Amino acid sequence: MSEINRRSFLEMVGMVGGGTALYQVMTSMGLAQASPQKMPDLQGGGQGKSVLILGAGLAGMASAYELRKAGYDVKVLEYNARAGGRCWTLRGGDEYTELGGFKQKVGFDRGLYLNPGPWRVPYHHYAYMNYAREFGIKLEVFPQVNFNAYIHRKGGNGQAGTKVRLREPMVDMQGHVSELLSKAVAAGNDLDTGVTGEDREKLMDSLRGWGFLDKNGRYSKGLATSAARGYDEDPGARLQPGKPSTPLTLKQILDDRLWTDLATGMLYEFQSTIFEPQGGMDAMARAFESRLKPLITYRARVTELSQNDSGVTAVYEDLAGGGTQTVQADYCICTIPLSILSQLKLKVGAELEAAIRKVPYAPSFKAGIQYKRRFWEQDDEIFGGITYTDQEIQTLSYPANNYLSQGKGVVLSAYMFGPDAVRFTGMNPADRMKEVLRQNTQIHPQAQKEFDNGVSVGWHRVPWTLGCYGLYTDETRKNAYPVLCARHGRLMLAGEHTSYWNGWQEGALLAATTAVEEMHAFAMKS
Amino acid sequence: MSEINRRSFLEMVGMVGGGTALYQVMTSMGLAQASPQKMPDLQGGGQGKSVLILGAGLAGMASAYELRKAGYDVKVLEYNARAGGRCWTLRGGDEYTELGGFKQKVGFDRGLYLNPGPWRVPYHHYAYMNYAREFGIKLEVFPQVNFNAYIHRKGGNGQAGTKVRLREPMVDMQGHVSELLSKAVAAGNDLDTGVTGEDREKLMDSLRGWGFLDKNGRYSKGLATSAARGYDEDPGARLQPGKPSTPLTLKQILDDRLWTDLATGMLYEFQSTIFEPQGGMDAMARAFESRLKPLITYRARVTELSQNDSGVTAVYEDLAGGGTQTVQADYCICTIPLSILSQLKLKVGAELEAAIRKVPYAPSFKAGIQYKRRFWEQDDEIFGGITYTDQEIQTLSYPANNYLSQGKGVVLSAYMFGPDAVRFTGMNPADRMKEVLRQNTQIHPQAQKEFDNGVSVGWHRVPWTLGCYGLYTDETRKNAYPVLCARHGRLMLAGEHTSYWNGWQEGALLAATTAVEEMHAFAMKS
Repeated sequence: MSEINRRSFLEMVGMVGGGTALYQVMTSMGLAQASPQKMPDLQGGGQGKSVLILGAGLAGMASAYELRKAGYDVKVLEYNARAGGRCWTLRGGDEYTELGGFKQKVGFDRGLYLNPGPWRVPYHHYAYMNYAREFGIKLEVFPQVNFNAYIHRKGGNGQAGTKVRLREPMVDMQGHVSELLSKAVAAGNDLDTGVTGEDREKLMDSLRGWGFLDKNGRYSKGLATSAARGYDEDPGARLQPGKPSTPLTLKQILDDRLWTDLATGMLYEFQSTIFEPQGGMDAMARAFESRLKPLITYRARVTELSQNDSGVTAVYEDLAGGGTQTVQADYCICTIPLSILSQLKLKVGAELEAAIRKVPYAPSFKAGIQYKRRFWEQDDEIFGGITYTDQEIQTLSYPANNYLSQGKGVVLSAYMFGPDAVRFTGMNPADRMKEVLRQNTQIHPQAQKEFDNGVSVGWHRVPWTLGCYGLYTDETRKNAYPVLCARHGRLMLAGEHTSYWNGWQEGALLAATTAVEEMHAFAMKS
Repeated sequence: MSEINRRSFLEMVGMVGGGTALYQVMTSMGLAQASPQKMPDLQGGGQGKSVLILGAGLAGMASAYELRKAGYDVKVLEYNARAGGRCWTLRGGDEYTELGGFKQKVGFDRGLYLNPGPWRVPYHHYAYMNYAREFGIKLEVFPQVNFNAYIHRKGGNGQAGTKVRLREPMVDMQGHVSELLSKAVAAGNDLDTGVTGEDREKLMDSLRGWGFLDKNGRYSKGLATSAARGYDEDPGARLQPGKPSTPLTLKQILDDRLWTDLATGMLYEFQSTIFEPQGGMDAMARAFESRLKPLITYRARVTELSQNDSGVTAVYEDLAGGGTQTVQADYCICTIPLSILSQLKLKVGAELEAAIRKVPYAPSFKAGIQYKRRFWEQDDEIFGGITYTDQEIQTLSYPANNYLSQGKGVVLSAYMFGPDAVRFTGMNPADRMKEVLRQNTQIHPQAQKEFDNGVSVGWHRVPWTLGCYGLYTDETRKNAYPVLCARHGRLMLAGEHTSYWNGWQEGALLAATTAVEEMHAFAMKS
C-alpha cells in the first residue's frame, strides 16, 4: 500500500476498541513473536493429480513451486513473455507497450533500473524473507526515512512555497508538542490522565528529553535543538561549534500540514529495517522462474475458465500464433487479477463470479528518470530515501544503492495514487515525462539540466492488470472478500487481492501458501 | 560520540537562546545547505619544504595526502605496524595485545569483523564522504533505528524485567503524548501557546494524524494503532486481518524510562541515512595507506618533540630494533592523542604543554561475539540496527550486511561508556567475554548456545591511545581547547580532539584539512 493511502486511512479511520489495558510484560522469549512464520510443507501426495495455475506472477509461481514439491503435475499459463507479473523491473533496452499502443523503450544505463510495481520489502514479510533466504536473494537496506530529504509544498493562492529538510519538522513537531504538554502539565491542569504526583514529574522529565526541551521546558533555538534538527552551519574542527538553526513555528507546521509526512516511517509496513533486493525487484521473480521454467507456457492469454465436478478447463489464445488451446486439470489456482478475470468467460459458480466483478483496482502511476549526475547526493547530501511534495507527483525516491557513484542514477520521479494517477496515465508518455520533469524541477532545479531519459508506467494501462492492486472498501471486504478467499470446488483464487497485504508481494505469497495448503487438503480427501 | 553520551548531554544540558523566531522559508536552492563542503586545495608551493607528521591515523594521513599534493616533503611516524589508528577493524587471524600484556587472537570467520573504534558515518560528514567518493569506497546503509530491535530493562528491586520491540514505545509515546495534549486543548485550557481559533482545530487534526489517535482523540487498542506499533498476530492472506496489540501504558514507559532510547535516531549525528563502509571501517585507512605507504615509518614510538624558530625535532624509538632515531623538519602536524602526547618529553611552548595535560580521554569498551547462527534474524526478525539495555553492556548491534546469510555473524555485543567501561576494561579478556555473554543471554537466550568466539577492546588499555577520545568539559573547552586548536610556531595539533566532532572520524579529517590550510598559509608567508 502507498504511504499516501495508508496515511489517509489512518487520518480517516475511526478506531474501535477500548482503552489501553495494562501491558503484560514479556520477559520470556517467543511470546513477542507476531508472525506465525509458517511456510507450507505439503508432505507429498500429489502424484497423479494435475493442477493448472493461471498467471506466473509471485502467487502463481509460489503455488507452482510448492505443489510440484508435493508431487503434482503442474502447468502454468502466463500472458506475458516473462514471468513475474507486477514483480517487475525495467532496464535499459526493455520495451513496454501499454494499452492504447504507446510503446516505450527504456534508455537506462547498464545496472540502473525502475521497479514499476513493488519496490520495498519490510522485515516482517516473512514469506518473502523465507523464500529470499532459500533462494539466496541479496537484500540491501532501503532508507525509507531520510532525514535530509525534503518535504516540499508548492504554495500558491498567495502562499509562498516551502522546502524543508525532513529532519526539521520531524524534530520541531516533537518539540512543540512536548513543550505544549509540558506547559499544560506544569499549569496543573487536570488532564484526566491518571498521571499524578511522582508520575507527573516523570512525565515532565520525559518531555524534556524526548522533546528536546530546555530546562525551562521550552523548545527553543540553540545548539541543543540543532543537535537534532540540524544546524545553519555544522560543527567542525577547531573553533566551529556549529551555528544553531531556527526551529519552524508550530503554526507553519500546521499551515503547511508538514506533519502529514512525518509518521509514515513509523507505520509497521514501512518501518526500518525495510529492504530492496539488489539489482531490481524482479530478483524474486527470476529466482522462481529459473526453477519453474519448464512448467510455464508464456504468451498464453486465457479467455475462458470453467469447472465441473471432475475438473477445470481453461481456454487460452496462444499469442505466439498457436491459435486457441484448451487445457484441463484436476484443480486450478487462478492468480489472474480480478480486473482481468472479470472480463473472461467464466463458469466457476455464480457467487464467485459476482464477487470477482465487485472489486475495482487502484490507479497508480510511476515514472523513473535517469539523470546524468547524482546531484541529489553531490549537491543536496541526500542518499536514498523519499522526498514528499504536494505536487501531483507526490513522491520522489532516490537510488538506495551505489552511493557516491560518479555515474548516472535513476530517481523514482513520481509515485502517484488517486485522481492524479488517472490523469497522468491518460497522457501520452512524452507529455507525462515533460510534466514529471517540470515538477521534479520545482524541488531540484538541477533536474532540467541533468535530465537524460525516462520511462513511465500508468497501471490502468498495463494490459495484464488494468490497475495496480485490489481496492477494497469496508463493504466489499465484507460481502465480496470472503467469497474470493474461499475454495470453490476445484478452484481457488490467489494473489494480493486475497490478502490483507494488498499491493504487497507478501500478500501474493501468503495467498499462494494458503491456497496450496487448502487445495492440497481437499485433494487428499477427494 | 556514543548515543548514551549524547543522550545524557541532551538530558542534562541547559539550552540557551531565545524563543523560536519566525522561520524564513527557503524556496530558492542552496540556502538550506548547512555544510560548507569545503575541501582543501593548497595549490602547490610546498616544494623544498619538509613536514613531519606524527601518527598515521586518519588525521595524519589526510594531512600527509594534502601536503604531498602541494609539493611538501612529507614524512609520517606511526607507532603501530599498520596505519589507521582508531580507524580499525579486527578480523580473523588478527592479534591484539593490550596494555598489561593480555593478547587476544581473533577467531572470526572470513568476511566477519568488529570495528573496535568508529563504526558509523553520517551523511553530513562531508570530508569523509568526499574522500570516500574520491577513493571509491563502497558504503552500505547502517540501520541505526531498527523498529523491531529491543529495548530491554533488567528489572530487579522487586520490578519485573521488560523486553519490548522498539516500535512499541516509539509509537506509544507519540500516541500518549498526543492524546494528553489533545485532551488539554479540547478542555480549552490556556496553554499560552498562541494557538487559537482555527489553529486550534489544525492542532487537534495534526495530533490525531501524527499521534495515531482515534476520532475521539484517544490512543487506543485497535487495528489502526497496530498498523504502526505492530500486531499480536500480523495481517495475512484470506481471513486474517491482523490481531491488534495492546499499547504500553504511559506509566510503564515512564517507569521503565523507555523514552530515553527513542530519540537517539533523531539526533543529527545518528540520523538516517547513516552508513558503514563495506567490509570494515578500516576501508578509509587502507585507501589512504595504499596511497601514502612510502611516506610512513611504522613501529616508531615518538618519545620527544621540540621546536625552535627554525624547525621541529622529534626523537623516536624504532620498535623494530633500530634504536633511537631523530627526525627534523620545517613543520610538524602532530596527531598523537593528548593522552599519549602528555607523557612525551615536550618542548613546544609552555601554554600548549599545559593545555595538552588538561584533557582526559573517554573510557569506552566494545566486545564482538561471533555467533554460530544468525538467530537475531532467523528467530527475532531483527536485521541490523541496535538493541538498548540498561545492563552494563548498554548496546547491542547486529550486522548491517549479508542479511539472510545462512552462516555465522558477529554481533557488537557490548558498547559501553563511563564507569562500566572502566570496570570491564579492568577485567581479563576471558572474564569480560563471560560477562558480556551472560548479559547478551538476558536479551537473547539463544546466545549461550550459539556462542562461537569473541574479542574485546577496552580503550583505556589500548597502548597507543589510552582512551577512546578527548573528553571536554565546558571549562576545558574554554581554557584548553582554543590553545590546542591554534598553530604554535611550526607545530599544529590535529585529530578528533581539535574538533567538535569528538570521537568521530569526521573530526580527525576536518582537523587535518584545517591544519594543512593554516600551516600552508604560514609556510607560504615564511
